[in-house]
Amino acid sequence: MQRPTIAVLGASGYAGVELTRLLVLHPGVELQVVGSDRWMDETVAAKAGIPSELRYLAPDRALEHAATCSAVLLATPAEISHAWVPQLVDRAIVIDLSGAFRLRDATAYPKHYGFEHHAPELLARARYGLPELRRGELAGARLIANPGCYATAIQLALAPLAKLVTGRWVVDAVSGVTGAGRKATEEMSFAEVAGDVRAYRALRHQHLPEIVQGVGGDLAFVAHLVPIARGILATCHAELAPGVDGARVASAFDAYLREPFIELEASADDVAIKDVVGTNRCALGWSLAGRHLVVTSAIDNLVKGAAGQAVQNLNLALGLPETMGLTLRGFHP
Amino acid sequence: MQRPTIAVLGASGYAGVELTRLLVLHPGVELQVVGSDRWMDETVAAKAGIPSELRYLAPDRALEHAATCSAVLLATPAEISHAWVPQLVDRAIVIDLSGAFRLRDATAYPKHYGFEHHAPELLARARYGLPELRRGELAGARLIANPGCYATAIQLALAPLAKLVTGRWVVDAVSGVTGAGRKATEEMSFAEVAGDVRAYRALRHQHLPEIVQGVGGDLAFVAHLVPIARGILATCHAELAPGVDGARVASAFDAYLREPFIELEASADDVAIKDVVGTNRCALGWSLAGRHLVVTSAIDNLVKGAAGQAVQNLNLALGLPETMGLTLRGFHP
Amino acid sequence: MQRPTIAVLGASGYAGVELTRLLVLHPGVELQVVGSDRWMDETVAAKAGIPSELRYLAPDRALEHAATCSAVLLATPAEISHAWVPQLVDRAIVIDLSGAFRLRDATAYPKHYGFEHHAPELLARARYGLPELRRGELAGARLIANPGCYATAIQLALAPLAKLVTGRWVVDAVSGVTGAGRKATEEMSFAEVAGDVRAYRALRHQHLPEIVQGVGGDLAFVAHLVPIARGILATCHAELAPGVDGARVASAFDAYLREPFIELEASADDVAIKDVVGTNRCALGWSLAGRHLVVTSAIDNLVKGAAGQAVQNLNLALGLPETMGLTLRGFHP
Amino acid sequence: MQRPTIAVLGASGYAGVELTRLLVLHPGVELQVVGSDRWMDETVAAKAGIPSELRYLAPDRALEHAATCSAVLLATPAEISHAWVPQLVDRAIVIDLSGAFRLRDATAYPKHYGFEHHAPELLARARYGLPELRRGELAGARLIANPGCYATAIQLALAPLAKLVTGRWVVDAVSGVTGAGRKATEEMSFAEVAGDVRAYRALRHQHLPEIVQGVGGDLAFVAHLVPIARGILATCHAELAPGVDGARVASAFDAYLREPFIELEASADDVAIKDVVGTNRCALGWSLAGRHLVVTSAIDNLVKGAAGQAVQNLNLALGLPETMGLTLRGFHP
Repeated sequence: MQRPTIAVLGASGYAGVELTRLLVLHPGVELQVVGSDRWMDETVAAKAGIPSELRYLAPDRALEHAATCSAVLLATPAEISHAWVPQLVDRAIVIDLSGAFRLRDATAYPKHYGFEHHAPELLARARYGLPELRRGELAGARLIANPGCYATAIQLALAPLAKLVTGRWVVDAVSGVTGAGRKATEEMSFAEVAGDVRAYRALRHQHLPEIVQGVGGDLAFVAHLVPIARGILATCHAELAPGVDGARVASAFDAYLREPFIELEASADDVAIKDVVGTNRCALGWSLAGRHLVVTSAIDNLVKGAAGQAVQNLNLALGLPETMGLTLRGFHP
Repeated sequence: MQRPTIAVLGASGYAGVELTRLLVLHPGVELQVVGSDRWMDETVAAKAGIPSELRYLAPDRALEHAATCSAVLLATPAEISHAWVPQLVDRAIVIDLSGAFRLRDATAYPKHYGFEHHAPELLARARYGLPELRRGELAGARLIANPGCYATAIQLALAPLAKLVTGRWVVDAVSGVTGAGRKATEEMSFAEVAGDVRAYRALRHQHLPEIVQGVGGDLAFVAHLVPIARGILATCHAELAPGVDGARVASAFDAYLREPFIELEASADDVAIKDVVGTNRCALGWSLAGRHLVVTSAIDNLVKGAAGQAVQNLNLALGLPETMGLTLRGFHP
Repeated sequence: MQRPTIAVLGASGYAGVELTRLLVLHPGVELQVVGSDRWMDETVAAKAGIPSELRYLAPDRALEHAATCSAVLLATPAEISHAWVPQLVDRAIVIDLSGAFRLRDATAYPKHYGFEHHAPELLARARYGLPELRRGELAGARLIANPGCYATAIQLALAPLAKLVTGRWVVDAVSGVTGAGRKATEEMSFAEVAGDVRAYRALRHQHLPEIVQGVGGDLAFVAHLVPIARGILATCHAELAPGVDGARVASAFDAYLREPFIELEASADDVAIKDVVGTNRCALGWSLAGRHLVVTSAIDNLVKGAAGQAVQNLNLALGLPETMGLTLRGFHP
Repeated sequence: MQRPTIAVLGASGYAGVELTRLLVLHPGVELQVVGSDRWMDETVAAKAGIPSELRYLAPDRALEHAATCSAVLLATPAEISHAWVPQLVDRAIVIDLSGAFRLRDATAYPKHYGFEHHAPELLARARYGLPELRRGELAGARLIANPGCYATAIQLALAPLAKLVTGRWVVDAVSGVTGAGRKATEEMSFAEVAGDVRAYRALRHQHLPEIVQGVGGDLAFVAHLVPIARGILATCHAELAPGVDGARVASAFDAYLREPFIELEASADDVAIKDVVGTNRCALGWSLAGRHLVVTSAIDNLVKGAAGQAVQNLNLALGLPETMGLTLRGFHP
């Protein structure tokens, strides 16, 4: 039987390379098209060190070929996805890793993404690809908006608590530098990043509306850059509602026990980025002092926070086993 | 005129080495005694790379000589300070860098520091050495409890706001590994720390009661370890009280404008560890979204968070200019 | 058909964990015994994050069970291997990752490994497990001495040149901290290692006689510690013999073209640790200026330099395909 | 008495910032002009975090003002220095930190620096600013070529040996990323540099002719990039000439005993970058095995390898004490 054919657009960014790596080795699909303006005409083996003789196509040719595949995954900037997805969505399954189809409210785009959204009807059709919370909507989906990296870590931490807490969520999260994409900036140079930590887009990060759309309530969120290559750790605070105790919290998280990609740890202190780097897992742990609850959540921003989750969504959309191609062996050190 | 003579006990830990470096080069005092069980009989030059031919004395001899100095600075573990300070306090100015004399409530020690406190009368006499907030109490003080590193960064951020906010403080802070002291543990090995971030003592860190004692209110605090050598960044959340606006916040922070060791930055995003490493400065910045306020605060945990602040306190206790010996040139990269 | 059964002794060190990871996922063998004094009675899943419910056995019990397996891999210190291998070697295939059976000359052990060797007859029987150079001796071998990490990187660089050069080899190599094993020492703490580089055991590293035994000639070798977790880069200098030119060098390295785990790069500048981390590959490149030749060689010290090569040797000893279980997807960043 | 006035051109690169920091705090000179196209009109305090209200001037205005100062230090690219120095050299003392005036042989410039040299007469006049080896030529010098960073570390290691060894020098050296200057390239991004080590310009680095000009002989030199911000460690190999023993080596290095900026360590293993970072010191140690000698040499590439040495040269040119303004307190961690 022929395996479904796949195209990856924007294949030379960090998420695009990770996608390519996962799909080349995925036993249930066949990667046929990789598009990149940066590496065009080169082989995947030469540029990304992945065992494949596929060659990167220039963006326009890649887009053309992509439309003939069973599914297209876009690891392109949001504005590019916004332009290309309408051309693809009636011809193939589309999974977009950018923010271009994550928000239901088209009017939020100018503020958070810097462009006017011209496809509000696609925003209504797009399914939000966080399988642990929306699995039912993803089987057979045709357009999936793959969640943001912070948004993944934070929603997996907060969703079980939505009915158990009161007041606003407060979240501080740290991310490794690959979260910012492949960048040739002084700001992201080793000399500037090593030895430093700083906040960025405090209280106005573009994942904020995405998280609120998912878990409701009010959210204060501050993102931070730390000198690591990969990984996110989100520290999430909430106040238990009257009458809610630790046992209720525990049983809310127990809903994750059967999730193949979620690891429940003994406490907030037992969640570490090193345990999830290179895997599609999310590690979660919580601690309580009085009524104040802290949940920590760790993912690899390029895997569960981007490419791995996209493959998980692809599996669901294609009717393949959800974990296929995702039994990764992370390692640390 | 003879300069005041100084002893440093516990001189081979990271804070002790930093203290030694500052005091060897301090123009207003004379370092006469350095005590260390680890490096005894070796010279400061050989072990700490600081231009001084002073030799480390064994702890008991150092303690004996210390009592003849004008001032003694203890960079010893809290239990050691607890045992030694009573022997020193009537003979010399004492500045203790541990937590042994920071809490006024003796009954808090078993829980937070793991020992019974036997000198509650000294807890009552000890002044809390955070000059920017307590300068008036420090001139001529005889026993100064030097604040904890997290406690310094966080109180400097929160103190101006005490009357402007409502509800609990929520603080997430990250620290470099020297905050844990000189450690020969697998947990602190390069292989384990590099590439990782994790929370520790979530909601039960021993600096928690110290901070609450200083700024009042209710506090949720989570400490995190990040792969840097030096530095703390604290991200502090609070809710403005009704009727309080950004202008009031700005004017509250303006009280710091004349502080030699505080730098006010334009926003929470503009505070970075790299700008304070190697200096006695605290950088502060704030951002507001609706009524939610975030203040970020950065210090070098070994300087403003330990040895530098101890020298600042020493200057005050001795009647020297507060910044003497503290015009450090940090550098990054 | 039943798969060969495998025991790993010393399974909690960094190489032991890597071996366990490779063997749990290896399709051709069945890992049955993991021994560790450190983690005994715990599961592999809990301590090493590898999907297996196997429990670590105490060393004596593990040794006893190991003797009933088809093959035993020892990731134990050289003195332990020296004591245990004689008990195992007539009952199972033995692959020792320590230096205990690498040197043919028993009299070299006191100087380089600090103990008297009591099994010189096993030194004579042991095959040296560097498949690219000794494949013929490894099929069906019963006792294999797995090469040292530096020794692997350096011999793969030098062996093709043995007949083309004159004078002594000069090699400087850098290694990540996992090369020193799992260590709870101040010297290996993040605070000491970050930002530093230093030489160690200059001209007297214990891999020196192992390399000379393999490639002949005279060797000056200096090892260095760099602040990375994994990886070795060896920079190897030699002088071309009269009449030898670059074309001869190129054709000597062409012998590696069919090697599945060797990557030939365009020049010495094109070899980077990041391209091999997490894989069983060795990257090699060379540059020539006049008659002076430089070859750079990069491996992951825990994979091609230890556990991966041990599995490669195991495959050869068992008659399995040499690359089975070793198609690893390294990643960087 | 009025202090000599100083201009720094190219003041916003890493070496330029370091120069500015040293000169602002230098008690014997007065920094009057800082030029930068990058930061023009901003203050030194705002951009470089150095306590000075000086403002950066645009390059042309800075050049004009510089000509009225007592001395001008150029931290500009070699081609810029090549263009500007002829305009300055008859009006002020000139110290150039680039390679533009380091090589006596004008014909070497196209190959090593990529431009034709149009001022061979200045190459003849320029003094080479390595005080420990050329102090006599530097008092009162009018044009000083400040050595390269690698060239400084390596020549200080090799010079004492010039008459004691035979055959070619072989040197491998590693450098932190600031050696490449302030760079906005993907290659120098944290994501690419962290966890990696690689060689670059193997056997053809532009400091090669500079070193050979200084110490004679034949040299094979390979530079490497390591994931640290600051520091160089050079590992230098040589063969002792017949009749030369360790005692002769020791006495050759003893010539450095009175050098204020050289630290002799007990062996090659005792030299570490961390001990010199932030200082103007060079640490040197050697080890011998048979007739093979290894000397390790460590400096801070931005201080002894650039700005610090430039200030040392400035002091000599102006007749000030050589160590003035250079008693820096480095620190590690």
